[in-house]
Amino acid sequence: MTFERENLKRLGGYVPGEQPSRAKAKLNTNENPFPPCDAVLRVLAGINGEMLRRYPDPTAQAFRAEAARLHGLIPDNIIATNGGDELLRLALTTFLPPGSPLGLAEPSYSLYPVLAAVHDSPICAVPLEDDWSAPVNIALRWNAAGAKLAILVNPHAPSGRLTSVEELAAVARAFDGVLLIDEAYIDFVDPGIRHNSSALVSDLDNVLLLRTMNKGYSLAGLRLGYGIGPPHLIAPMLSKTKDSYNVDVVSQKVGEAALHHQAEAATSWVIVRAERIRLAGTLSERIRLCAFPGELPACNGDPTELGKGGAAVEWTGDRGDLRQMVRSETASRQPSHLNWHGGRE
Amino acid sequence: MTFERENLKRLGGYVPGEQPSRAKAKLNTNENPFPPCDAVLRVLAGINGEMLRRYPDPTAQAFRAEAARLHGLIPDNIIATNGGDELLRLALTTFLPPGSPLGLAEPSYSLYPVLAAVHDSPICAVPLEDDWSAPVNIALRWNAAGAKLAILVNPHAPSGRLTSVEELAAVARAFDGVLLIDEAYIDFVDPGIRHNSSALVSDLDNVLLLRTMNKGYSLAGLRLGYGIGPPHLIAPMLSKTKDSYNVDVVSQKVGEAALHHQAEAATSWVIVRAERIRLAGTLSERIRLCAFPGELPACNGDPTELGKGGAAVEWTGDRGDLRQMVRSETASRQPSHLNWHGGRE
Repeated sequence: MTFERENLKRLGGYVPGEQPSRAKAKLNTNENPFPPCDAVLRVLAGINGEMLRRYPDPTAQAFRAEAARLHGLIPDNIIATNGGDELLRLALTTFLPPGSPLGLAEPSYSLYPVLAAVHDSPICAVPLEDDWSAPVNIALRWNAAGAKLAILVNPHAPSGRLTSVEELAAVARAFDGVLLIDEAYIDFVDPGIRHNSSALVSDLDNVLLLRTMNKGYSLAGLRLGYGIGPPHLIAPMLSKTKDSYNVDVVSQKVGEAALHHQAEAATSWVIVRAERIRLAGTLSERIRLCAFPGELPACNGDPTELGKGGAAVEWTGDRGDLRQMVRSETASRQPSHLNWHGGRE
Repeated sequence: MTFERENLKRLGGYVPGEQPSRAKAKLNTNENPFPPCDAVLRVLAGINGEMLRRYPDPTAQAFRAEAARLHGLIPDNIIATNGGDELLRLALTTFLPPGSPLGLAEPSYSLYPVLAAVHDSPICAVPLEDDWSAPVNIALRWNAAGAKLAILVNPHAPSGRLTSVEELAAVARAFDGVLLIDEAYIDFVDPGIRHNSSALVSDLDNVLLLRTMNKGYSLAGLRLGYGIGPPHLIAPMLSKTKDSYNVDVVSQKVGEAALHHQAEAATSWVIVRAERIRLAGTLSERIRLCAFPGELPACNGDPTELGKGGAAVEWTGDRGDLRQMVRSETASRQPSHLNWHGGRE
């Protein structure tokens, strides 16, 4: 006998990428190859039994204050979440009536349609242009479908293309619902571009930004992310739809320290960007590669050409301490995609 | 402008109990007055930067194996969750179609109706008998309402009454949906009673048990709970409806150690039970008190008689290292309720 809801019986579920047991960076989920800085590890070492036995702050006020300072905003603009995953789910729970479509771009992060299916909502997936940009009428197409919530990932996964703040603002202005911009990879964008989306949440009433500490701050193990948005979008998630104590005390304290010591994390971003460019150059000698200047490059080609083939292949570069793992990503209009950045054994 | 779903606009939200800033046990959420044992703290101290920068095991296999050993079950019977809160939410997401009623008892834990409202489901709350037992026809009343999921908390909150395994089995057998038994307080039941509900998940196809590490294992700060159930109930939550990486690496490793060292945690349970009995005796001299032998006692009376009055009052017992805090709980048929156990400053 089954007790699952009908929409779930039809659903295969989201399968997280393979978890290699060997001590190696896992690049399909973009783990940072470097551990957190010493100042952050000292905060971790300061966690004691007294902190463990007490309930954490249910709204993570100290972490939110630190994030607000970083972005030039106020704590009411911030919600701390159990990974970026929780913010995605909360956005659906809070703003999307079940049965109402979720606006997406196609291709995009493969988790989004799974979240929609769990929520029992269809998707309205608008195909991207050949240069991976969003069509100028994407918001109108979401509106026509009746979408109350839409998600864009920026830089785009799997291509790595960065959409400018001006382009994002135009989409948000034309969209009748809430636009969630998933910035999971934003820390690895070339700072020379001066991409800064924080102003969007002050200027527009329907923009939510997703940030994660997983990648840029080397804290994937902690599950900590946060949302940035106008207070009227943050408040219902903070006081109504999130689990009461959604972020544990370790994540709150270590995450606060990591934001405070952003400069140390940023040194890893410089190295990762440099390795990405170097690797992209090496790979481009073997497979057709398209990279956007200063952004995450995307590899379009057969991953079996890289090495052992299959879903995850291993690649050893010309520096002995570096190994690269890539995972093939199946996109609707490409035979295969590789989504990666640099890693260290 | 508001973008909230209609059902959320009507909802006040769940307000977690007050978080006292002073170093005092917070008893309305039943924090354990003692920190975790040394063996558990050593595992915490062993968490390093390498573990933080990697994604955690998405299905917490080692923790689930340890929990399965403890309960004489297999890992497929177990799901690790971000606190017991997540299991409650997952049960609604997985088994309750929105709009279909959630079966409850009245009174019960005040979070349940909030979860139903977020899910856009009504509740079917069946009043308990005068002795806080469930009416014999409770399952039939849930069935008549079309409830696909029902929640009973055992020992009952706020009364502390323990329902026997036989009584629970009878309710589950008569109920057409999934019965979730919230055992948040189970560790503090007198072991002399030999209450063991694990067999229910082997004998019945519609029973889920909720356990939390918050109270019994002094890990409220970590947010770790788990569900116990037949594999066909666990699997859809594990592979479809939970967030991909719902439990962080610290919780998985520290929680596994805490279960492994259950005997050390159990020494705190003995002390808490003894203090509870002592405090119940002292309180009963001041207010009308009903306590079930060997169970959590419930205080029925005016909390202002205890001391400073208001929603949270402070009480100093006859041992200088002990302070007791109680929070008034408003139940439908009692002017006030106190829900508490012992704490240490």
